[in-house]
Amino acid sequence: MKTTRNTPPVVLIIAANDPSGGAGIVADIETVSHHQCQPACVLTALTVQDSVNVQRIEAVTAELLLAQAEPILADMPVAAIKIGLIGSTANITALATLLKKWRDIPVVLDPILRAGGGKPLASQDMAAHMVQELLPLTTLLTPNIHELLSLAGCSEIPEAVEKLAAAGLEWLLLTTTDETDPLSSEVTNQLFCQGQAVASWRWPRLPHTYHGSGCTLAAAAASAIALAPNAPEQILNAAYRAQAFTWQSLAAGCQLGQGQWHPNRRFTTP
Amino acid sequence: MKTTRNTPPVVLIIAANDPSGGAGIVADIETVSHHQCQPACVLTALTVQDSVNVQRIEAVTAELLLAQAEPILADMPVAAIKIGLIGSTANITALATLLKKWRDIPVVLDPILRAGGGKPLASQDMAAHMVQELLPLTTLLTPNIHELLSLAGCSEIPEAVEKLAAAGLEWLLLTTTDETDPLSSEVTNQLFCQGQAVASWRWPRLPHTYHGSGCTLAAAAASAIALAPNAPEQILNAAYRAQAFTWQSLAAGCQLGQGQWHPNRRFTTP
Repeated sequence: MKTTRNTPPVVLIIAANDPSGGAGIVADIETVSHHQCQPACVLTALTVQDSVNVQRIEAVTAELLLAQAEPILADMPVAAIKIGLIGSTANITALATLLKKWRDIPVVLDPILRAGGGKPLASQDMAAHMVQELLPLTTLLTPNIHELLSLAGCSEIPEAVEKLAAAGLEWLLLTTTDETDPLSSEVTNQLFCQGQAVASWRWPRLPHTYHGSGCTLAAAAASAIALAPNAPEQILNAAYRAQAFTWQSLAAGCQLGQGQWHPNRRFTTP
Repeated sequence: MKTTRNTPPVVLIIAANDPSGGAGIVADIETVSHHQCQPACVLTALTVQDSVNVQRIEAVTAELLLAQAEPILADMPVAAIKIGLIGSTANITALATLLKKWRDIPVVLDPILRAGGGKPLASQDMAAHMVQELLPLTTLLTPNIHELLSLAGCSEIPEAVEKLAAAGLEWLLLTTTDETDPLSSEVTNQLFCQGQAVASWRWPRLPHTYHGSGCTLAAAAASAIALAPNAPEQILNAAYRAQAFTWQSLAAGCQLGQGQWHPNRRFTTP
């Protein structure tokens, strides 16, 4: 079954559930759907959390992760894969096996290492396995500064970007909201290809902290890639569109719980 | 935190994941989001399936089900609850406890008993517990004919409707696609309140079978209820809007896998 002009591109989401709906697969599904792509969704973990912080993570087994994903990849024409929270080192290894088998499908990896509220969501061992096993299979990585430096194991951005490129990473979209001076009026994001700076964008700084901005960005990038499979400047354009969608979602966000704000991904389709 | 005119109503989805994205929480999240409500999502089970059939169900424990749901209900103003596949008798009992604690929130229950491909998704014991423990706490039940008769344990529709009303059910929206003569050009759905017929609607029969039509219907009904909390004829209107949204989603559907068609819930917001 080939995708025709009448069928939407399928984006396979591989991530964890956040019951509050701010982040995780709810963020991913809303984002993919609002890009007019069909979300397919494989769970890596369940979490217990609210808008304030994460209390608990229950990773699925690597066996169940693959059991969920393989029939979908065999049954449906997946145009892009978005990976969020992975849950365990065994799941990283399982995903590497899966991605090698489906090498032609572009992969956007959001390397989630800690929750917005501060709780660690991946061990140092998992970060090392992510770099070694997943970066060579990743089309676009979307870290913030903390994630970039933790993955690379160093303290300077240029060195970290080089290290990840040396590990086999192709594209890197670095967001800097997490380390930008809170008094600054702008946030700068940078796109690198094989370690070389390709573009940068400045966005007006928004006044709140948001639950799921990173998930939204990566899912929007995967959707944009799925929508334009053979476009020139495909990743450059996807990186821009993903930031624009995310910024608008945050700007339209609201406080639904007691903690971080919820993005609003429900405005008119981008 | 009260919902104001600027914040979307929150619809809490309590259901299982279908990795194909046709049914389950993907259907629910897409539907709730396209109604301009904020989805919050608690997993009852993971499944392994594609567009053809369900291979496996892994229910979460009742403890983890409640651990996911309770912080959300405490943190966010939930305007409606939509329940899909529940996964185990223990989960039914846990849900009954939860719903009793949050008695003011309207509940739409889609009593899923078997997959579109035919695989049973709930035991006879679970059906009995659903009737006894959940129907008295349900605002609107959305069975097809097979589900209605199985829940009531009888073979005639009028008797079954009476039996469920006697068990404490308030509203029942009966869909009949599953038993309509395939040569018929129309499908009739009926709404009952405490066992009394209130309204019926006829819809042009669509040519395919679809993965997730029941999930879409129940999630759309929950969204419509959440959007109009104090409206007169609230359930009557929600029942109509949910059918209209579902029918349009199916009519715009497409075949993405080898089996049942995917509804398209991504058209302009209803």
